[in-house]
Amino acid sequence: MPHTEPDEPVTDTAPVPGGPVTISYIAESAGVSIPTVSKVLNGRSGVAADTRARVEALVHRYGYRRPTPSVRSNMMELVFDDLEHMWGMEIIRGVERVAREQRMGVVLTAFGPQRGAIRYWIDDTVSRRPACVVTVAQLSADQRDQLRARDIPFVVVDPTSELPDGVPFVGATNWAGGRSAARHLVELGHRRIAMVAGPEQLLCCQARVDGYRSALAAAGLPTDPGLVARAELTLDGGQAAGLALLNRPDPPTAIFASNDLQALGVYQAARRLGLRIPADLSVVGFDDLPLAALVDPALTTVRQPLTEMAVAATELALALGRGEQTPQIGLELATTLTVRGSTAPPRR
Amino acid sequence: MPHTEPDEPVTDTAPVPGGPVTISYIAESAGVSIPTVSKVLNGRSGVAADTRARVEALVHRYGYRRPTPSVRSNMMELVFDDLEHMWGMEIIRGVERVAREQRMGVVLTAFGPQRGAIRYWIDDTVSRRPACVVTVAQLSADQRDQLRARDIPFVVVDPTSELPDGVPFVGATNWAGGRSAARHLVELGHRRIAMVAGPEQLLCCQARVDGYRSALAAAGLPTDPGLVARAELTLDGGQAAGLALLNRPDPPTAIFASNDLQALGVYQAARRLGLRIPADLSVVGFDDLPLAALVDPALTTVRQPLTEMAVAATELALALGRGEQTPQIGLELATTLTVRGSTAPPRR
Repeated sequence: MPHTEPDEPVTDTAPVPGGPVTISYIAESAGVSIPTVSKVLNGRSGVAADTRARVEALVHRYGYRRPTPSVRSNMMELVFDDLEHMWGMEIIRGVERVAREQRMGVVLTAFGPQRGAIRYWIDDTVSRRPACVVTVAQLSADQRDQLRARDIPFVVVDPTSELPDGVPFVGATNWAGGRSAARHLVELGHRRIAMVAGPEQLLCCQARVDGYRSALAAAGLPTDPGLVARAELTLDGGQAAGLALLNRPDPPTAIFASNDLQALGVYQAARRLGLRIPADLSVVGFDDLPLAALVDPALTTVRQPLTEMAVAATELALALGRGEQTPQIGLELATTLTVRGSTAPPRR
Repeated sequence: MPHTEPDEPVTDTAPVPGGPVTISYIAESAGVSIPTVSKVLNGRSGVAADTRARVEALVHRYGYRRPTPSVRSNMMELVFDDLEHMWGMEIIRGVERVAREQRMGVVLTAFGPQRGAIRYWIDDTVSRRPACVVTVAQLSADQRDQLRARDIPFVVVDPTSELPDGVPFVGATNWAGGRSAARHLVELGHRRIAMVAGPEQLLCCQARVDGYRSALAAAGLPTDPGLVARAELTLDGGQAAGLALLNRPDPPTAIFASNDLQALGVYQAARRLGLRIPADLSVVGFDDLPLAALVDPALTTVRQPLTEMAVAATELALALGRGEQTPQIGLELATTLTVRGSTAPPRR
């Protein structure tokens, strides 16, 4: 560092209020040493929890940004809650595609069924100093703050709950997708169209139900609350809801399920009742997983562009990591209806 | 470094033949400087290709081993050729499970459809100094040599071709699995049992066919070469082979396919010919992917313990990375027959 004369203004330790905030100013405000602030910023250990919290609060309050290092890390992080969902592979494939193009190493973490990795993930990530984070998992406010304090940008893929403003995300047009599924059934001539809705707390599932209701309303069809059955996004959930709907005195001629697994559960329910698909019952799914084309009859379903969503999220995260201005930080990619063998006009 | 008197024997540059080989001795033998050898060992750039090859050949010939660093990296590598196979997720899940337990970061690389990552992967891996490598991809002899020269252990999961002796691997009992599938059909009373064999160059597929033949021979059934049709491990491959087998003048009453996708192709072939499964035709697959339980009828199949194979491979690789002696470095985990709705006694 250049030597400074004693009578020169030492801007590092006494910034003009409103001027750029320095690491020394944060140290002084927090009543700790500069190395302690540095430890916090670099995610190293040896700092008491309350001290770390105090420093991070100041970093956040002053909007302190570290000077961009001259060399960006050539690693990025990809985070899942778990890898049980069949669509996880589509996401991984998209991230890997971009990572290859940019010669970027991808550190993959699944918090796991007992969320065992969640305790240490943020510490290890911070010490790896990744270029960016792409996350399918919902990060906690604390995890987000820690990433922000170190200028590590993160992008959420397919957010399942409401995000604070300003959190970058890439999702799918769930509302429009739900609408296109129901409209397809309306256009085939169906009038009693049921829906297997997903868990209420999942934002994507709420949007799909609203899209379905919107299409029925646009067609002048009444929405019968008895034709919406709620279920988990599983095979068993779909089967139970399918049985409940089909055992009604006035059963539907078509069922739109909130994902492909639920739709296959509806297949099972139909079979148990001796109904043929699509002759006696039309079924539409959501996702277009590879298995949708493999079942019999092949499933008509709303395609979520999962791989493309992962590609867009990774490109956005890496651009933010390079400090680039991006035209938008939140976007939904269009779903498309894939018509296969499970839908047909109703018999009556 | 300690200063040495000029008349002291300089053991670093003139080792007694048969004594421990040093980095200096390798430098002298290769006619290059010590920093150049160090660059090669550390995977840094700035060394001509032929020089690198000469140094690596000497490292290999002399069996040079660098002193174990005091701190092992807390990162490991997981490598795929591509992520198109539906069973890739089962492997990733197993690796992540062990990584969580040992707080290890997993860098995931897919060489990709155009193998775009294969050019730089070994360089980047070497510079990341991982604790170990778990690979589903077939590494080249050069890649293996580079890992060995740097004491980075690697374990192959589910090897598809013959490995040199001494390469650690974890596979499945493909021969025994093929045998159990055919025996199940024999025990149901089938006498004309066909097989959709996979590509000849895949070792696992060869073993499955041989297991099938062994079970028929054990039951005293003749092996009719016309009842073995070769096909790619795909839905279309299975359908084409299924049609060829079922259109024979003396069609089989049961078909054993080399994987689940082929088996679903056989389902399609049967449907096109108006045959019901299992009443008119029994079908057995191999893998037990999640979709096997979802199709109708649910598929009887030989379960490969893919997640467990990945767990075993990761534990083995990490143990080797810690320098531990392991009781064995190559193992096959047992397959198990999962009987579902696609197999039944023949009608005649």
